[in-house]
Amino acid sequence: MSDAIQAKELLIRAVECDQLGRILEAQTLYQDGIEKLMSFVSGEKDEAKRKSYYKRINEYVERAEAIKARINGKLMLGQVVRHISIEEDDFGYDYDQLFGTYMNEKTVEILIEEPYVTLNYQYQNLVRFLELAATNCSNLKYFRLVTKEDPKDIEQQKTNFGQIRSDLKNRNITFCVKYEDTLHDRKIYLSNGFIIKIGRGLHFYKASNPMYSIGLVNYKFRRCLQTDVDIWRNDNTSS
Amino acid sequence: MSDAIQAKELLIRAVECDQLGRILEAQTLYQDGIEKLMSFVSGEKDEAKRKSYYKRINEYVERAEAIKARINGKLMLGQVVRHISIEEDDFGYDYDQLFGTYMNEKTVEILIEEPYVTLNYQYQNLVRFLELAATNCSNLKYFRLVTKEDPKDIEQQKTNFGQIRSDLKNRNITFCVKYEDTLHDRKIYLSNGFIIKIGRGLHFYKASNPMYSIGLVNYKFRRCLQTDVDIWRNDNTSS
Repeated sequence: MSDAIQAKELLIRAVECDQLGRILEAQTLYQDGIEKLMSFVSGEKDEAKRKSYYKRINEYVERAEAIKARINGKLMLGQVVRHISIEEDDFGYDYDQLFGTYMNEKTVEILIEEPYVTLNYQYQNLVRFLELAATNCSNLKYFRLVTKEDPKDIEQQKTNFGQIRSDLKNRNITFCVKYEDTLHDRKIYLSNGFIIKIGRGLHFYKASNPMYSIGLVNYKFRRCLQTDVDIWRNDNTSS
Repeated sequence: MSDAIQAKELLIRAVECDQLGRILEAQTLYQDGIEKLMSFVSGEKDEAKRKSYYKRINEYVERAEAIKARINGKLMLGQVVRHISIEEDDFGYDYDQLFGTYMNEKTVEILIEEPYVTLNYQYQNLVRFLELAATNCSNLKYFRLVTKEDPKDIEQQKTNFGQIRSDLKNRNITFCVKYEDTLHDRKIYLSNGFIIKIGRGLHFYKASNPMYSIGLVNYKFRRCLQTDVDIWRNDNTSS
């Protein structure tokens, strides 16, 4: 497929997602579409045509900027609806018990900022979270992970994310990874207006000790590290 | 502690368990107590004393035999209360959904016959089953696993079972392993009168493929191997 056709398809889908309120996905599609269009236009020799393309690109850039502002608005914290302090060595906290109730059929998009996804148990935690999403969010369409690159083995990390991407694609969920090397804070944004902030992100469980003991699989039996969980509702709800 | 005192303690506990209807545990305690008593008596030089001990040992052996007969009675199948045919590549079956409802606060003892517990995923399945028991069976006191010895690494198997034993001990559950090298059939006996028979035992799940995909942790998303699940109720219920 040529760059021009690809760009067109991406931008049509961007507009559709935008209209459906799926703004995270629309943002990704606008960015990818603009990039493709740029690479196509740079090869265009007719100056008049090039100018007209650049005008259109500008329009798309403005739309993408407007969406970015809307996303930032949605990430603004409104009020805390629930607060849980997990003490060191507490147990009784799996993801479902902590915040499963906020993940529902109105959650169409999820954005998770989780700096560290490089070790086996961290990938497992991510999959554990996705399993909860697959169970509770029957209309989920888009999942964006913002994380740091694995400094030791970026290729393995890409392979692992590739596995998750193809698995989610089979469930009609688009999985998108964005690398941000300065990321620190953890945040889970749900498009139904809830934002989950956990000091340690998804990784607040201790290893099962001894290995073969109750808590190996079912994390409600796992000892935890100290961390705070805050569930916020965005003022600007309804996606 | 001398063999005599140990034997006495074991046999007192055996009688207590017997009276409470915890017949699996009583059986183990009688066997261990008789063994200890025998090794003590063999060192006794006074023939009159020895005779009197043997008489007592005989009484305990008879009680143990009577309990064995009662256990066999409880393992007799009464009527099928539920039948599920799992087809190759089906999903939607975790232990809880299949038979969790039969594991309840009346389940004080569990006997599981599972020939193969030697590989990592098989230990995990056993722990997964125990987690369900810890969740649903609030009065569980005794868990007996009947299995084959690991022909490749019996020491590692003993270490792993040791981990499970010490973990369950902290939850006031006695974990007992009995090795039977000719075992084939799989069976789970619950002391509330239900017997769960699964053609493939606990191990009817396919590996998650690719590894990092939905179903890695939550087995309701895992593809299954073909197998039949029959839930029986023993005629001779009430433990």
